[in-house]
Amino acid sequence: MTQQITRAPAALARIRDLVQPALVAAVDRLDDPQMRLIARYQLGWCDVDGAPTGGTGGKAIRPALAVLSAEAVRGGSAAGVPAAVAVELVHNFSLLHDDVMDRDLERRHRPTGWVAFGEGQAILAGSALLTQAVQVLMEDSPDSRRCLPLLLATVQQLISGQSRDLLLEGRDDATLAEVLTMEAGKTAALLSCSAAIGALAAGAPVPVLTGLTDFGYELGVAFQLVDDVLGVVGDPAVTGKSSSSDVRAGKRSAPVVAALAGDSAASAELARMLAAGPPGTESDVERATGLVIDAGGLEWTVRAADDHLAAALRHLEALPLARPAADELAAVARYIVGRDR
Amino acid sequence: MTQQITRAPAALARIRDLVQPALVAAVDRLDDPQMRLIARYQLGWCDVDGAPTGGTGGKAIRPALAVLSAEAVRGGSAAGVPAAVAVELVHNFSLLHDDVMDRDLERRHRPTGWVAFGEGQAILAGSALLTQAVQVLMEDSPDSRRCLPLLLATVQQLISGQSRDLLLEGRDDATLAEVLTMEAGKTAALLSCSAAIGALAAGAPVPVLTGLTDFGYELGVAFQLVDDVLGVVGDPAVTGKSSSSDVRAGKRSAPVVAALAGDSAASAELARMLAAGPPGTESDVERATGLVIDAGGLEWTVRAADDHLAAALRHLEALPLARPAADELAAVARYIVGRDR
Repeated sequence: MTQQITRAPAALARIRDLVQPALVAAVDRLDDPQMRLIARYQLGWCDVDGAPTGGTGGKAIRPALAVLSAEAVRGGSAAGVPAAVAVELVHNFSLLHDDVMDRDLERRHRPTGWVAFGEGQAILAGSALLTQAVQVLMEDSPDSRRCLPLLLATVQQLISGQSRDLLLEGRDDATLAEVLTMEAGKTAALLSCSAAIGALAAGAPVPVLTGLTDFGYELGVAFQLVDDVLGVVGDPAVTGKSSSSDVRAGKRSAPVVAALAGDSAASAELARMLAAGPPGTESDVERATGLVIDAGGLEWTVRAADDHLAAALRHLEALPLARPAADELAAVARYIVGRDR
Repeated sequence: MTQQITRAPAALARIRDLVQPALVAAVDRLDDPQMRLIARYQLGWCDVDGAPTGGTGGKAIRPALAVLSAEAVRGGSAAGVPAAVAVELVHNFSLLHDDVMDRDLERRHRPTGWVAFGEGQAILAGSALLTQAVQVLMEDSPDSRRCLPLLLATVQQLISGQSRDLLLEGRDDATLAEVLTMEAGKTAALLSCSAAIGALAAGAPVPVLTGLTDFGYELGVAFQLVDDVLGVVGDPAVTGKSSSSDVRAGKRSAPVVAALAGDSAASAELARMLAAGPPGTESDVERATGLVIDAGGLEWTVRAADDHLAAALRHLEALPLARPAADELAAVARYIVGRDR
């Protein structure tokens, strides 16, 4: 996989514009000025002092999936908007909290929330966004309220995935199966929820909801595996993180664990190296990165990501969905896995 | 105010026994074993390794208020149980998170959650309990679901109160009004919610709900002020914290700020002392504690707590409530403010 800066599907911008007013309204409903400020900063709308950045934050992939899933079942875009707001708020809840736990210093080329506002305030703002996500669905229509059990179960899966991630960090003997289960919770759960929640709000029948859930789940696994690849060979200018960030942190991500699972000389040397803790110097980081590649860890992960993307697209094609939404779902899927050309 | 170990009203034990099975069921519904373990530890049911302690945790004041409020409007105890579980879960969410932020090491004579399980796991478990609280109300009856907006708004107030508390910590010039507003969010909001939520589930009319809300709010302010008094002169054997814990931490609690607001020599000396940061030695802690007392800070706080308790009881007496629940609400109120004899 080579890293590509590709043109985003038009659906992403269209839906971000559609969802943005409702997202702004949800954040503005936070009574506490400090929580509102941190939420706006986290979403990329303002700097630390509250001055507008003119930006609308990230790519808003999860809101796009939510609205497209409503459109794909002929429910209309509007039916998916509250759900889109809720999943984006939950996503930012998890980013704020995970950055505290992972001691990540930068996100999207800016200081993370806890670096900018302090750890306590970042934890509080995360909880405020989680609570607001529930409030958005609760205070909307019965159609939106129907989505609450799915959203809440998804939040529990996110929490469980992050907990497993932290527990794996201290272990040398993590298996690929454990890493993939953990990543399913951390990333696939919310993408799966996003891909079905708009259709659920629109009243789609169970088989369609199941198919969309499976699509989102496979897509989420593929997306996380690509993220893991970027954690080994990503360009800081694109990822907003330092190069080889996962290798540097000694993180047992999929490429690393896949590399360790091999029986090559590179595999054995990598194991010896990492047993001593995270690489200490820049040349150690470079050496470890090379060993992950030589031991086939990167290749395995890229192939696994491709397989999961293909599975996702098969689930999608099997469903009786409306165009152009179905095509846009596929385009978004290919785009976020970096396989759109 | 002298510290007293008094006999708890019988209603507390009765309702704890009534609510405990539903609370256990809610915690057991957490899929993740690590989250379940931390939740059980936090609630006082097991030790760090999961071995049962035989205990049922704290006094369960909030569940008692919730169930009594259902009984007081003739709704029956059972109507208040899901709400009681929800407020207890929210309370423990805030304890887990606040202990991380405040770097508190002990709670109820045991290591706090983050000390026992690590900061990340404690943050995650707090979020899991918050989410489970919403799930409990969501998955119960329409009567319970009606309580969700109140619970969610209360969570936002808790978050806001803790945020203000952290922001005040860094400031020398906190006013009594600011401290009281902060404490209202931190403590009174959830007691107020607890005192009304059972009645709300039971379908009580708005004027009764308003009266119970006011009762719980005044009670919550009184309760927090007593907690502040114990933070200055509390006996570690009773509070489970070190003696003069708030003074030691340089915390601007109500007695300290009230002491600083005076114009006595003690007031001025206390201001000079605290301007240099938290007291450095044990004799400094003792000296500062003495100055808070000499400057009238403790006396002011005790009187304010009494005034708020009296206001709470007046709200209660004005309502057309069923006995014995109304009397039990008053008994619980007097008990938790340490004024039951």
